[in-house]
Amino acid sequence: MKISNRLGKLRQRMSEKETEAILISQPENRHYLSGFNGSSGFLLITPGSAILATDFRYVEQAEMQSPDYNIFKIAGDIEGWFPDLIDGLSIRRLGFESDHLSFDMHRRLSNILDDSRLQTRLVPITGLAEPIRAVKEPEEIELITQAISISDTALDKVAATIQADMGMIEEDVAWEIERTLRNNGSQTLPFDVIVASGANAALPHARPSQRAIQSGEPIVIDIGARVQGYSSDLSRTICLGTADDTFKRVYKVVMEAQMAAITGITEGMTGAQADGFAREIIERAGYGDSFGHGLGHGLGLSPHEKPHLSPNSGDALGNGMVFTIEPGVYLTGWGGVRIEDTVIMENGKIRVLSQAQKMEVGV
Amino acid sequence: MKISNRLGKLRQRMSEKETEAILISQPENRHYLSGFNGSSGFLLITPGSAILATDFRYVEQAEMQSPDYNIFKIAGDIEGWFPDLIDGLSIRRLGFESDHLSFDMHRRLSNILDDSRLQTRLVPITGLAEPIRAVKEPEEIELITQAISISDTALDKVAATIQADMGMIEEDVAWEIERTLRNNGSQTLPFDVIVASGANAALPHARPSQRAIQSGEPIVIDIGARVQGYSSDLSRTICLGTADDTFKRVYKVVMEAQMAAITGITEGMTGAQADGFAREIIERAGYGDSFGHGLGHGLGLSPHEKPHLSPNSGDALGNGMVFTIEPGVYLTGWGGVRIEDTVIMENGKIRVLSQAQKMEVGV
Repeated sequence: MKISNRLGKLRQRMSEKETEAILISQPENRHYLSGFNGSSGFLLITPGSAILATDFRYVEQAEMQSPDYNIFKIAGDIEGWFPDLIDGLSIRRLGFESDHLSFDMHRRLSNILDDSRLQTRLVPITGLAEPIRAVKEPEEIELITQAISISDTALDKVAATIQADMGMIEEDVAWEIERTLRNNGSQTLPFDVIVASGANAALPHARPSQRAIQSGEPIVIDIGARVQGYSSDLSRTICLGTADDTFKRVYKVVMEAQMAAITGITEGMTGAQADGFAREIIERAGYGDSFGHGLGHGLGLSPHEKPHLSPNSGDALGNGMVFTIEPGVYLTGWGGVRIEDTVIMENGKIRVLSQAQKMEVGV
Repeated sequence: MKISNRLGKLRQRMSEKETEAILISQPENRHYLSGFNGSSGFLLITPGSAILATDFRYVEQAEMQSPDYNIFKIAGDIEGWFPDLIDGLSIRRLGFESDHLSFDMHRRLSNILDDSRLQTRLVPITGLAEPIRAVKEPEEIELITQAISISDTALDKVAATIQADMGMIEEDVAWEIERTLRNNGSQTLPFDVIVASGANAALPHARPSQRAIQSGEPIVIDIGARVQGYSSDLSRTICLGTADDTFKRVYKVVMEAQMAAITGITEGMTGAQADGFAREIIERAGYGDSFGHGLGHGLGLSPHEKPHLSPNSGDALGNGMVFTIEPGVYLTGWGGVRIEDTVIMENGKIRVLSQAQKMEVGV
């Protein structure tokens, strides 16, 4: 993690966007640009300076984790310390992350600046750091690959032990997966494990319940591991015992949709074009209304970040981007099927990183 | 959980504040006021209607969890669906949670309303739902008490197994605690377990590291369990082997500070007055600069919520409120001591809910 390189890229983008200074408040951007992983603080970055403002709880940690930054200790209300933070930097236009900063915090900063002798004006900015984060450095790919390996292993191991019609409930399976992920080296999980069986599998973001696992039903499992902050994200759908015709048909469609995306997506396409490969197949099979979410999303320090693969996404897919491909079909009352792999764009094409087993379903 | 009662209280406050309609975006407020615990959506509440707007992933769940609400399915950009959501409600002044809604989302909503034929204007509002959430219902107290019991048991059990000078590292202790919490019935934890030994204990929000536990050093352990969404929060500081004089002195001061707060706080005091009981003792002992955080915070659906106990807090402490009392002293290079219990204000006085053992330290 070379913070100076990241700061260099950010300053390049600031210069392109004629942004004289930026106040970073979004947590993953703060972490990425400084190395500081505490839960609270601001970065103030100008062409010539980099300041990390955080409170008592984190000052010592910030000094250890962010040697490229000057650490500014904040205490009390922002009205008290903010003028001191920017004093002497002669900033006329201060960018802020307008998709993260709250309405109130903007208003307070605005009032502070109006009341001060400083000639600083606030300027809303979005998408300054996110495109940099979307293209992964080799070291980041290594950490994501480690997280993927942990989730692959855990899913294969636990899936093989699930027994239907024996009173085993979704919550038990979810906890067994979580224990396995953690025992195999994951940090606290990036999101709660999903184990959704039968009709619960029709809820794309179901929570594990006390429903007993039964044979002949779809079981959607969606898990992630985290290594030094970097996430994996993996879904498989299985069926124990004899799958019904709906399962066979839907599973085949989702598999084909995923394969079409994996083979079709190339460098330079938009997230909408990528989404289209899978959506076309699902629509043609008559399940278009049952694929209500996007095809995938980038992942890194956040389990959901740029690029977005969805019908309205203009994000351009480029080399070094790591993202999920996860078509799904959800039928109320019956259940659902989602199959999700994490991939990287390399040499203009998709390479699949996750390797957990997929169920073979004959039709 | 009687959603109709909560809506009644909210509408009472809306009436007092002359708020005709409110758009709720803050996640715990959304959960509390609707019963819906999905990760995305808005509530739109007027005197005569209650609408929950959420997307494809959550519509089915919302219908199950929020029978008091009309479920409105959202798809695509907010520019597309927001006019339909408010159409027909004849809202002139629509409140929004200005300490949560981002600058950008406010601007988009504002533009949508300007472009529409609707005569609706946005009005920033804060603190509408939070004071209601701060006073716990009997059913909420029961869930918090269950979470407290789980964390008490886990801390006592694991603390007794920690061995110094045997190569046991902070991360191992933290994971053993987490497994115990989960095995004893906690949902995914409300925050990461803290196990901070030696100099690491000087960081109030330290992350468990690979540092080996050693004798004669402070070990700060801070944990929480979660039951049906409700959190507990518990800290203890222990020392294995022979405590040095600093430990004995600091530990005694922190214990006295906590006891002064527990016995001194009564109904109607502000968070600042409550904080003062402990702070005065710590200051008198010469450690005032080393107690850099507030004395405590409310807990419920969020592990940090109203009321705040800190030098600047005007929150009035009332019966039925559940909050932490957690003085701490942190000395760079040496370590720290924090002792945290969760309490409830009952009949005008403090009753301590958490019962994990506290180390006895002779001086």
